[in-house]
Amino acid sequence: MVGLPKAHLAGFSTLFFLSRAFGTSAARTAAERLHIGNMNSKVLGASYAVRGPVLDRALELQNELSANPDSLPFEEIVQCNIGNPQSLGQLPLSFHRQVISLVMCPEMLSEANMETTSKLFNADTIARAKRYAASVPSMGAYTHSQGIHLVREEVKEFIEARDGVGSVDPEQIFLTNGASEGVRITMQCMMRQGDNDNDGVLVPIPQYPLYSASCALMNGALVPYYLSEEAGWGLELAELQSQLDAARDKGIAVRGLVVINPGNPTGNTLSYENMKDIVEFCVENQLVLMADEVYQENIWRPDRPFISFRKVAVELGYRDEQGSDLQLISFHSVSKGFIGECGIRGGYFELFGIDDDVKAQMYKLASISLCSNTPGQVMTGLMVKPPVDGDESFPQYRDERASTLASLKRRADKVASALDSLPGVHCRPSDGALYAFPRIDLPDKFVKEAEKDGMPADEVYCLKLLSATGVVVVPGSGFGQVDGTWHFRTTFLPPEEKVDGVMERITKFHNAFMEEYA
Amino acid sequence: MVGLPKAHLAGFSTLFFLSRAFGTSAARTAAERLHIGNMNSKVLGASYAVRGPVLDRALELQNELSANPDSLPFEEIVQCNIGNPQSLGQLPLSFHRQVISLVMCPEMLSEANMETTSKLFNADTIARAKRYAASVPSMGAYTHSQGIHLVREEVKEFIEARDGVGSVDPEQIFLTNGASEGVRITMQCMMRQGDNDNDGVLVPIPQYPLYSASCALMNGALVPYYLSEEAGWGLELAELQSQLDAARDKGIAVRGLVVINPGNPTGNTLSYENMKDIVEFCVENQLVLMADEVYQENIWRPDRPFISFRKVAVELGYRDEQGSDLQLISFHSVSKGFIGECGIRGGYFELFGIDDDVKAQMYKLASISLCSNTPGQVMTGLMVKPPVDGDESFPQYRDERASTLASLKRRADKVASALDSLPGVHCRPSDGALYAFPRIDLPDKFVKEAEKDGMPADEVYCLKLLSATGVVVVPGSGFGQVDGTWHFRTTFLPPEEKVDGVMERITKFHNAFMEEYA
Repeated sequence: MVGLPKAHLAGFSTLFFLSRAFGTSAARTAAERLHIGNMNSKVLGASYAVRGPVLDRALELQNELSANPDSLPFEEIVQCNIGNPQSLGQLPLSFHRQVISLVMCPEMLSEANMETTSKLFNADTIARAKRYAASVPSMGAYTHSQGIHLVREEVKEFIEARDGVGSVDPEQIFLTNGASEGVRITMQCMMRQGDNDNDGVLVPIPQYPLYSASCALMNGALVPYYLSEEAGWGLELAELQSQLDAARDKGIAVRGLVVINPGNPTGNTLSYENMKDIVEFCVENQLVLMADEVYQENIWRPDRPFISFRKVAVELGYRDEQGSDLQLISFHSVSKGFIGECGIRGGYFELFGIDDDVKAQMYKLASISLCSNTPGQVMTGLMVKPPVDGDESFPQYRDERASTLASLKRRADKVASALDSLPGVHCRPSDGALYAFPRIDLPDKFVKEAEKDGMPADEVYCLKLLSATGVVVVPGSGFGQVDGTWHFRTTFLPPEEKVDGVMERITKFHNAFMEEYA
Repeated sequence: MVGLPKAHLAGFSTLFFLSRAFGTSAARTAAERLHIGNMNSKVLGASYAVRGPVLDRALELQNELSANPDSLPFEEIVQCNIGNPQSLGQLPLSFHRQVISLVMCPEMLSEANMETTSKLFNADTIARAKRYAASVPSMGAYTHSQGIHLVREEVKEFIEARDGVGSVDPEQIFLTNGASEGVRITMQCMMRQGDNDNDGVLVPIPQYPLYSASCALMNGALVPYYLSEEAGWGLELAELQSQLDAARDKGIAVRGLVVINPGNPTGNTLSYENMKDIVEFCVENQLVLMADEVYQENIWRPDRPFISFRKVAVELGYRDEQGSDLQLISFHSVSKGFIGECGIRGGYFELFGIDDDVKAQMYKLASISLCSNTPGQVMTGLMVKPPVDGDESFPQYRDERASTLASLKRRADKVASALDSLPGVHCRPSDGALYAFPRIDLPDKFVKEAEKDGMPADEVYCLKLLSATGVVVVPGSGFGQVDGTWHFRTTFLPPEEKVDGVMERITKFHNAFMEEYA
């Protein structure tokens, strides 16, 4: 055999020879089984409140109810802890599911069965399914790691039509298993684990806990900026600047800014002027703008239509090009709003002004997971390119969409106004998204009790609410809030016929609670 | 407002107050845009050869072919770089796809359409789909983060029937987007990023590059143990022990042992005796045994039936319990073999002897991604519980399965023997999995040329092979190999009618190559 001076382990050779520095004092390490005390502390340090202690208790109560239906003061658990519309009765869009169903079953698309298939489905539905089916060798094959090209073309067209400015390159689109995978890939690229333990990212408070969890896992510092509850959960530039300055003064290398618009959990939507300022702030401070826009089709205020950060950027003169002054990554998902296909796990992220060699690293990360699931990819295509006026399937799609959106709007109004009417509870109307985030003025006596028990007072409140009503909400401490204020997040997703009952149970509990601690 | 002494940012408060140590010399950090030079070096250091430079070149050639079909010495690119059966014409199992199709389309399961649906599908297919549909509020809802309970019950029954010993708790099963997600979760828990930069895991060489990539991303040391090519790619205990000792002497805390059985890329299968020794080795050295068993249904040797590490463990007297001496995590996937549903992204991992509080951390990680995709979960259920004798759908399932397996076996034999007959190429018959991993005695002159160009010689060989034949294979250096030896991995997945042509093109290229460098 030929002896060569260098190792032939392409790529991972670096692991052995470059990144290991054992020094001179190495001693044989002792064997120890895996236990909670010797796990990765970054995992231990991460938390994800949406599925935290309140949900754990809810699952226990669910089991009690199943075993003995009369054992609790309510008949069912109502999960308002998570934006999971179809778990609470929202129906899927027929067209979307029909196309997925057809692409999954090649024989239904075969000529031999076309007569029967045509009895079940419209011609445009079948044509659309055939188009997806023809774009890949099989839905059971790994796709390109950025996703099926046809779907990325559809995303491109959607963004161009939505924004009305500039053009989009499908090579800048990555299809993902929901938006959270895109956030993971982005964070993993930005946070220099080990090399610089002071990397950070600006995250709104309150925030969706995916960001705090991703930060914690990647050893990044979460640099909080507080949304102004008084200003309807507005984003104030002075607050951004002061938090950024403070973090950089402490030696944190702040790499990015997360903006959630429409807001989660706040339901706030940003104005065009505000967004311009945010874009310029990112340029000035060389921050990657991470735009979480997953609620873009769930806006309830007619005077505040959705505007994407990409549109604002292009209108300010920025271009998606190498070395761009603005670096923007936008996230979208099939999980939310009137589509609500959480379980299918589809979504995309779009790069703007990100260098090609950085993109190549993101592609490598996507490659390690091979590709996102194909039904989710197709669902993403259907989300961005639904039937249009003139299509056979359009009337049904239009009616289903309108009915779900109208019902969501009615429930949003009902939940917010019912909560706002409770003593010591302040809840602004929701502009968009799926949540209300009321502030509760918890009685001093109660807060002190909770403090003694070492628990955040709002978590105790949510646990009490759950035990009394079966309603699962998430304490504000899971999202972050100004010290000494207390909130909870509730979705307004219970089916319309149940919303009144849920609100009645909450009202009864809350009044009794306030009396008890008055 | 009530001022409290502690922060109310449950969970992520630790980020601000515990894990940040800025020291006293903090100075304001400079703003710098994201570029290749200031990314996470762990990402830069990871590599994933299955989709590396050879595939990139193949995609370029594909575009050339599309633009000008006569421009190259071959008519098509044949991707033998990745186990992606359906991309090369393998047909999906009809029953499996029919059930997925039905669960995706609630109206096909409705009473109103049942007459038409019954014309397309067997009664047992419809019944199975109804069962999955009834087990969740909707396929569009997030499931439990470990997956649909019914599917986990099916996995439990499958494992118990397969192994014939002991019982399995469905609470120990996690459904995932393919097996790679499970490996990521496991690695992320074991590798103490930042706290102990000398954590490592024993990985076979040659290996599937998912393991080296996961290691690199989690800042873990890949501790190689070499499979013995002379002994048919066997796993030798003495080699394991000596590599473990050497690593521990260097101060590496070796936390786990990866075993891929049947082997990827080697196609080797382990004997029962060998597996017993491996289990005891893990117990003795307190290593988590990570058993990659995704090729368990792809075994070509009748005298070497699949045996799971779980079965061996139970027969050795180990139990899945708190504080167990043996810690085992087994991985399975819907992507491989006669199922081959790579694009659907389904799979599971099973815990054995892992502490509950460690499992709770894995659950938290799964929660951050919410859940794996529901079509993939259902496909996992169908994989572990296919139709059985007596079911209306059984004959078609049996025939499709038998036909695909027989064809895979014929192709495995054909590819291995054709490669083995080439001058300077040594290829053993494949026991299982989807790959051949021939050794090539590359001429000295060629190796020296490649060395001058700074490239692994086998990578240059694979690029030349691609340019001459359109056949995409992966160089051995992407999997690891003994210094001075050269290999490539090829799947034997081209459609049966094309295998002869592919082997002819390879033979012609290789003979000319050997003459040129003789």
